[in-house]
Amino acid sequence: MSKMSNREKILTKGVRVIHERGFGGASVRGIAQAANVPLGSFTNNFPSKEVFGLEVLERYHDQNRQLSARTLQDKSLPVRARLQACFDRVLEDLIGYEMRRGSLIGNFSTEMSGQSELLRLRLMAIYQDFCADIQAMLEDGVGSGELRADLDCAQMAQFIYASMQGALLFAKVLRVPEPVESCRNQILRDLDFILSPPETVPL
Amino acid sequence: MSKMSNREKILTKGVRVIHERGFGGASVRGIAQAANVPLGSFTNNFPSKEVFGLEVLERYHDQNRQLSARTLQDKSLPVRARLQACFDRVLEDLIGYEMRRGSLIGNFSTEMSGQSELLRLRLMAIYQDFCADIQAMLEDGVGSGELRADLDCAQMAQFIYASMQGALLFAKVLRVPEPVESCRNQILRDLDFILSPPETVPL
Repeated sequence: MSKMSNREKILTKGVRVIHERGFGGASVRGIAQAANVPLGSFTNNFPSKEVFGLEVLERYHDQNRQLSARTLQDKSLPVRARLQACFDRVLEDLIGYEMRRGSLIGNFSTEMSGQSELLRLRLMAIYQDFCADIQAMLEDGVGSGELRADLDCAQMAQFIYASMQGALLFAKVLRVPEPVESCRNQILRDLDFILSPPETVPL
Repeated sequence: MSKMSNREKILTKGVRVIHERGFGGASVRGIAQAANVPLGSFTNNFPSKEVFGLEVLERYHDQNRQLSARTLQDKSLPVRARLQACFDRVLEDLIGYEMRRGSLIGNFSTEMSGQSELLRLRLMAIYQDFCADIQAMLEDGVGSGELRADLDCAQMAQFIYASMQGALLFAKVLRVPEPVESCRNQILRDLDFILSPPETVPL
């Protein structure tokens, strides 16, 4: 088994363990055990748990980028359909893991933003990246005339992403998908107000 | 110094330490040090860290109840003003602690809902309590004619609370109050759509 392959195993299993137990709750020993590698292999590959955390965040961010490319940035669709597709993918994933995972970004944020400036700054950049994607999508909608020209796209993007994160948090606590479904429904309703003559929109 | 007083010190400082470092990041030793009590005093007062966590949650829940009573349940005000008052108090608190605290409920949720069924069930009850308060407030608005009769108050309440939690999470990561301000502004705009003839509402 090559070193590279152990590194890969540690990262793959590490994401899963951190997702389920939190970053603080996931011990280096526990991650090595889950990955079925010797403890020394962890320390050979990662000089600290913090550096490991950074790499886990990178991986997760890559997944987010792919999600964004396939949904939010799919210029063949109107904005409303892109956002719905994004929520539906998130919901699929949530339900696939029986609401045990929540968002890794959320997990890291609550636990690490007060403890590691390195991780906090990386989280901030990831968050801003995803918000920028939502904002660009909303701006597409304004440009095409789908959305009203006076929409504050930056503020709305921040609201959408934060609300999604909060909904994922509660889905994890309640172990039901409803909070994310409520969030999707309300956000799409918000878009309807922005795109349609409001008096025709049912609550 | 009485035992009761040590217990009080541990709980008071414990809330603060957990707020800043997360539940996992706050060691029993660290909490005892912060409270300036011997380690044995912690173990005398709390049979386990989990039981201590439950008591911390109770305290926080009491604070939430007070916030709710003073804002969401203030029947002398219209619904929109009550919700604004609630957000403003949350923002005041956030800024007072320089965006370092976030929500204790959020902290516990990400960290503990996968690890302690006892804490998860308590978190669930707290979450449902606060949502019930928001829902009752929205129902007051429907009853008085302030809000449209076809509003799904339960779903909207869940959305409002989850969005607020997500916004607090991001405020903590970014160390700025804007996510919570954006959230307040958008939620109040949502209410405006529900209560006003929509065509008169500016974005």
